[in-house]
Amino acid sequence: MTGNTFGKLFRLTTFGESHGKAVGCVIDGCPAGLDLSEADIQKELERRKPGGWLASPRKEKDEVRILSGVFEGKTLGTPIAMVVENRDVDSRPYEEIKDIFRPGHADYTYHAKYGIRDWRGGGRASARETVARVAGGAVAKKLLGTFGIRVVGYTREIAGVECDVSGLTLDEIHARAEKSDVRCPDSEAEKQMIERVVEARKEGDSVGGIAEVIVSGVPPGLGEPVFWKLDAYLAFAFMGVPAVKGVEIGRGFKAARMRGSEHNDWMTWEKGVRFLSNNAGGVLGGISTGQDIVIRAAIKPTASISKVQKTVTVRGENVEISVKGRHDPCIVPRAIPVLEAMAALVIADCMMLQGLIPRFLV
Amino acid sequence: MTGNTFGKLFRLTTFGESHGKAVGCVIDGCPAGLDLSEADIQKELERRKPGGWLASPRKEKDEVRILSGVFEGKTLGTPIAMVVENRDVDSRPYEEIKDIFRPGHADYTYHAKYGIRDWRGGGRASARETVARVAGGAVAKKLLGTFGIRVVGYTREIAGVECDVSGLTLDEIHARAEKSDVRCPDSEAEKQMIERVVEARKEGDSVGGIAEVIVSGVPPGLGEPVFWKLDAYLAFAFMGVPAVKGVEIGRGFKAARMRGSEHNDWMTWEKGVRFLSNNAGGVLGGISTGQDIVIRAAIKPTASISKVQKTVTVRGENVEISVKGRHDPCIVPRAIPVLEAMAALVIADCMMLQGLIPRFLV
Amino acid sequence: MTGNTFGKLFRLTTFGESHGKAVGCVIDGCPAGLDLSEADIQKELERRKPGGWLASPRKEKDEVRILSGVFEGKTLGTPIAMVVENRDVDSRPYEEIKDIFRPGHADYTYHAKYGIRDWRGGGRASARETVARVAGGAVAKKLLGTFGIRVVGYTREIAGVECDVSGLTLDEIHARAEKSDVRCPDSEAEKQMIERVVEARKEGDSVGGIAEVIVSGVPPGLGEPVFWKLDAYLAFAFMGVPAVKGVEIGRGFKAARMRGSEHNDWMTWEKGVRFLSNNAGGVLGGISTGQDIVIRAAIKPTASISKVQKTVTVRGENVEISVKGRHDPCIVPRAIPVLEAMAALVIADCMMLQGLIPRFLV
Amino acid sequence: MTGNTFGKLFRLTTFGESHGKAVGCVIDGCPAGLDLSEADIQKELERRKPGGWLASPRKEKDEVRILSGVFEGKTLGTPIAMVVENRDVDSRPYEEIKDIFRPGHADYTYHAKYGIRDWRGGGRASARETVARVAGGAVAKKLLGTFGIRVVGYTREIAGVECDVSGLTLDEIHARAEKSDVRCPDSEAEKQMIERVVEARKEGDSVGGIAEVIVSGVPPGLGEPVFWKLDAYLAFAFMGVPAVKGVEIGRGFKAARMRGSEHNDWMTWEKGVRFLSNNAGGVLGGISTGQDIVIRAAIKPTASISKVQKTVTVRGENVEISVKGRHDPCIVPRAIPVLEAMAALVIADCMMLQGLIPRFLV
Repeated sequence: MTGNTFGKLFRLTTFGESHGKAVGCVIDGCPAGLDLSEADIQKELERRKPGGWLASPRKEKDEVRILSGVFEGKTLGTPIAMVVENRDVDSRPYEEIKDIFRPGHADYTYHAKYGIRDWRGGGRASARETVARVAGGAVAKKLLGTFGIRVVGYTREIAGVECDVSGLTLDEIHARAEKSDVRCPDSEAEKQMIERVVEARKEGDSVGGIAEVIVSGVPPGLGEPVFWKLDAYLAFAFMGVPAVKGVEIGRGFKAARMRGSEHNDWMTWEKGVRFLSNNAGGVLGGISTGQDIVIRAAIKPTASISKVQKTVTVRGENVEISVKGRHDPCIVPRAIPVLEAMAALVIADCMMLQGLIPRFLV
Repeated sequence: MTGNTFGKLFRLTTFGESHGKAVGCVIDGCPAGLDLSEADIQKELERRKPGGWLASPRKEKDEVRILSGVFEGKTLGTPIAMVVENRDVDSRPYEEIKDIFRPGHADYTYHAKYGIRDWRGGGRASARETVARVAGGAVAKKLLGTFGIRVVGYTREIAGVECDVSGLTLDEIHARAEKSDVRCPDSEAEKQMIERVVEARKEGDSVGGIAEVIVSGVPPGLGEPVFWKLDAYLAFAFMGVPAVKGVEIGRGFKAARMRGSEHNDWMTWEKGVRFLSNNAGGVLGGISTGQDIVIRAAIKPTASISKVQKTVTVRGENVEISVKGRHDPCIVPRAIPVLEAMAALVIADCMMLQGLIPRFLV
Repeated sequence: MTGNTFGKLFRLTTFGESHGKAVGCVIDGCPAGLDLSEADIQKELERRKPGGWLASPRKEKDEVRILSGVFEGKTLGTPIAMVVENRDVDSRPYEEIKDIFRPGHADYTYHAKYGIRDWRGGGRASARETVARVAGGAVAKKLLGTFGIRVVGYTREIAGVECDVSGLTLDEIHARAEKSDVRCPDSEAEKQMIERVVEARKEGDSVGGIAEVIVSGVPPGLGEPVFWKLDAYLAFAFMGVPAVKGVEIGRGFKAARMRGSEHNDWMTWEKGVRFLSNNAGGVLGGISTGQDIVIRAAIKPTASISKVQKTVTVRGENVEISVKGRHDPCIVPRAIPVLEAMAALVIADCMMLQGLIPRFLV
Repeated sequence: MTGNTFGKLFRLTTFGESHGKAVGCVIDGCPAGLDLSEADIQKELERRKPGGWLASPRKEKDEVRILSGVFEGKTLGTPIAMVVENRDVDSRPYEEIKDIFRPGHADYTYHAKYGIRDWRGGGRASARETVARVAGGAVAKKLLGTFGIRVVGYTREIAGVECDVSGLTLDEIHARAEKSDVRCPDSEAEKQMIERVVEARKEGDSVGGIAEVIVSGVPPGLGEPVFWKLDAYLAFAFMGVPAVKGVEIGRGFKAARMRGSEHNDWMTWEKGVRFLSNNAGGVLGGISTGQDIVIRAAIKPTASISKVQKTVTVRGENVEISVKGRHDPCIVPRAIPVLEAMAALVIADCMMLQGLIPRFLV
């Protein structure tokens, strides 16, 4: 229970099933006096919307409506409720598989947990739930922006094809990623990624990949030892995004093969502490160092594939299934705005916990 | 703030600095009627104790004292406070470096966060803090044991040497790991691991590695969508352990390179749902499947090395440092009881959230 | 921050300003499988609706719409979002006093806290916010009903006129209260109460009173020592309702003048523990005894009066004000469904904390 | 579960049974850099200690030991653990009544909740638990003191004898109360109170009373609408203190009989908003006004009396009991430091939530 609220001081509560009336959220704890409009939210929703040629053909307008918490263009410090109605709902493909537990999906586990489930479009377990996260994250981003903090995500790897962003500024990474069909800033890699996605789709299959999120402008001192370390909090946020199976910060799993003398980031003094490298990914002892925070999420291949698979029904029958519906053959590009949203929520919350954001902005 | 409490219903609050009077914890929410003695706790503390020939020479007896919550050998349902006094404290090596920010350590970030820090032995940022986690985890393990749930950890990799546990039962993995100086159940790999640790130590350097924890006997249905998914909760728990830089579940980062048709675990019916593989690592849609939960943590090389490093002082001087003190050249083996403790805390909490543990046991 | 969520396992988050687009709520943690329809909610909303001849002339339909969490007439275990649009909004009377801090209102304190406020109809500080509480409470009541627990409130006192319910059953108290314009089950007292309310209104003034809520069917064992005692939790819930200035349980303030020998409730055995009296109001040591829980709230006279009062503006001018708008001369009768809702939320949460409600109902 | 932690950012977790090894607490969230010593805590513990001629003859030294979180006389921002060993423990009088549910006590309800209880001296339900609250409150008081906030409590009424403090300053109230055996600043009333307490004791009976706590120096803006209103939070804190049966703020229950025109506090401008009265008790709309916060608790007569009472045993036998042990015939005077502690904890937490206390003090 209580699984649908995220954050301690800057808190997001989400609701909604994939084929229900609406998805939405309530943000509690946003300081008063922040400029905020529906356009600020809409802009981010557009980024995760289905509909690209490589993505699910579900055509949702995803129009957000702010119901409370904003008055004359400014936040009131009271809860901000936002609702996005579900419009392009087609539950028919789900009707015939409603008693089947799809492999790789939460059908069986929801059944085990709740004894009942909304089988239409995956119900609450659908990635459609992330609309509400992106809406909430848009508010967090707006807030962070006033403190000079930016959150940028991009596709690091798809189907084994890695991209190279060395030498690119954060602005360049962002600009190139947003122009790419797979959110990859490296055009060479992008081509190969697309090939592999198309190939998988043709075969009724799917592929996975790795997303990276960079947060710049973070002051040192964020994160609460010992359990609510900044990196623990980020790992929690990222691993809670659908399809994520691994999270790493800085050098991550590569750090396990390094020597201490290689991994430790040396410091020097230039009008303050400066680090000579960032193997740690911006976090030491669970507290931000002031460097860029660099985190990655491993994303599994989309579970919904049309290839025939073996599974069972709720009544204990062994059956075969080919999942129809409207699905992305690779979820990585659309996961990026969601991961950015989660990172923004964490940083906003930590800024407030550290007392760096006042109760009202003037 | 409030970073020192872990859990929702089964809650652990820890306290203590490395060279302060004591480290300890309070567990709130443990059901009444559980058999519990100091020996149950002591047994686990022994497993993480410093002192092996490969580890820090600090010689702590780590004797735990239960101050409350247990009466006539049974838990009361009230808070269980446990204290371990710090005895073998030698703060002299820290005296001379008290104004220096050690690379790879939390010295600078604690300074940035709190404006003050206990420089003796790393203070609160020391891995000594994990004594309290292991004590708390011991209670969680005891509780889970009454429900047939086991938590077993072992060293998967050190300094790039991977071990192979295929074909071993959980009992065998545990038995072999506990006999090994590096907690590695594979004697071939163990030898190489030890070589590399010894080599690193000789050079005044350190190495990292990967730990794996397996939880067996978990019923399906644990984990709270959407934010408090079971894997998100586990990632939070693991990434909050000192030196952990990455966490993955099931196939983890390897899943990013798999096809959906490879990764999806098929189901069949044998007096209930049975999975034909466990690529997911026991979690689907953030909810346990009933299979073994398999999680790994990437652990960075120990930050304390005697090799000379560049850094700065609190006063802005550029200096060189060679860290003395008593340190483990590889922290992986001693991290395992800590990771097991964290996994046990998560599962105990999720069992309670799911209503599978009554308020008192009879 | 985080002030708009109530509960630990059965959690209510509310949103909405009095003259904004809507008020509403999200319930997280309601078990799956509960029969629930909009009619269940609507029934309770009707009870707090403005519009009686003694009440505010604001005519809101208060139609609730469930956006999520219910599928084919049953709860899913996922968040239940409910929205009530604000329709009969007339902000003109507030326009002219928007810079004035009304005495007895939260105008000044919201200004001090947030630096900004929605002055239309009191914004978030309006009693209109309680629509969302009643909606949330309706779900809690429905849930408690399946366990035989009832929550009944009535007007105990208005303007110094006390009522007498001795000898009445809970059913009779409820039936009579619901027929009364002031929710008073004692027709003698009712007449005098109405006289005093009418008199106050004529004089441009207002009156206060005392509401009592009785919860029957509560099992022994609810409430979490030491801070989250059942009575502490109820006091928290009641004192958080607008206009409440005091809360007491059982004999309450009268207990302060009793002897221990009078106040202690004796026990006897009749197929279990039976109490011979209920001075404690159903709670001992913060834990339910199994008797009726009896709680009272002291409600201040409505702050909005047309009598001329002295106050100041946001710019520091000393002014006089006569509050127009649409107000109840006595808020007690309409506060009762709100207090019932709060009591139901507390008991539902405590039932879940005690493990007496499963994750899904069959 | 989770009932033993109080607060959101400034958090107190307590532990300990009356006749167990120790009682104690952990404070998490206290800002770094606060001067703090064991003497600061001890001073407050002395105020609640048993031993006065009117009180329980249990002679506890109540020596506090700080185990963590303080370094070189200053708080570190890390958890502050404090322990008070139980020394003068005499469990023999309880041995013979261990199977009997004492009337007015939590014996039966703990049994119903946990299925097991520590019958020695009331176990966790004993007022001895409040030692830990006073220790925690002492830290909160120290912190608030640096912001000019004071918390003063006194006995307002005992056994129906009311005291009169009109015309007295806060300093005078405090000074007189602390010199009085019943913590009553009015010497006339004091005499009568003592007479009634002595009389009750002679008869093997007990009396109750009312305590008032005043908090001065509170800035406007504290308290979190809508559920975590400042007065709701205070009511929660007070009602959670053993033996409290009612809480009121400002005019409290008397407000229920006032007219709006009498009760509303008018404002005027004198270099800022000034109120002409304080009927509200320092809180409007759940947010502090900047005036003194005035709260009262109704305290029931001590449940432990030697007069013969009827009750039952755990085995279902009807028996008579005369409670021996060492008890206060009136708990009001000793409850006052506890209520002050609770008020201090609430205000400290609200100051932090409002962002008025930085993460470290310089």
